[in-house]
Amino acid sequence: MDAEPINDVFVADCPGRHVLDHVTSRWATLLIGALAEGPQRFYLLRDRIGGISEKMLSQTLRVLARDGLVAREVEPDSPPKVTYRLTPLGEELAAHLSGLIGWIAASTDDIITAQGRYDAAKSRS
Amino acid sequence: MDAEPINDVFVADCPGRHVLDHVTSRWATLLIGALAEGPQRFYLLRDRIGGISEKMLSQTLRVLARDGLVAREVEPDSPPKVTYRLTPLGEELAAHLSGLIGWIAASTDDIITAQGRYDAAKSRS
Repeated sequence: MDAEPINDVFVADCPGRHVLDHVTSRWATLLIGALAEGPQRFYLLRDRIGGISEKMLSQTLRVLARDGLVAREVEPDSPPKVTYRLTPLGEELAAHLSGLIGWIAASTDDIITAQGRYDAAKSRS
Repeated sequence: MDAEPINDVFVADCPGRHVLDHVTSRWATLLIGALAEGPQRFYLLRDRIGGISEKMLSQTLRVLARDGLVAREVEPDSPPKVTYRLTPLGEELAAHLSGLIGWIAASTDDIITAQGRYDAAKSRS
């Protein structure tokens, strides 16, 4: 059996589409991007990702841990020290998302210029 | 003045974050991915992207045209023939998203396996 079709993101309601929804959600993209910089404690991740609530961070970490993209490491300290890091699969995803994040930083000015041009053309028509 | 901070996707409510939201929305990702295969007519895009409504396709095309990522070409036929294609800026984005889409197709089986393992561990604990 060919596994391709069910993993094809272009097919609605198939596993590949669900994975797309997970990994391109705003908070998942930023969380994977933040962890690409190295393993991190919960509160430092919260501070790194502007605007994320602790509830949303917990929830996103849980979804990505279930997907096998993020690992949770507990050091038996008092209180226990919890660190989050990318798994090897998560590192692969991070390579794609970091490229995307870098492109956005480099291209946002061009996009804002394009938006201004589009709006000006609309208001003339 | 350093333009970096406002284009940094990690900063809430800044232009870079808005661009991230545009380009990683489910339909934008799939639309850019579909146009990476070549210029396309509206109805063929609708058929390529499983589950998209015509309203959502129109709306996503409009957002991406405003961002300067997609261009709309009208051939003076009767009725006029409208084709959508990526701009050079859109082609750059498509390179990142096509890599991501390919990774998802190749990794969905691993992610489903990880989910099963996670759920089994949870149900035992």
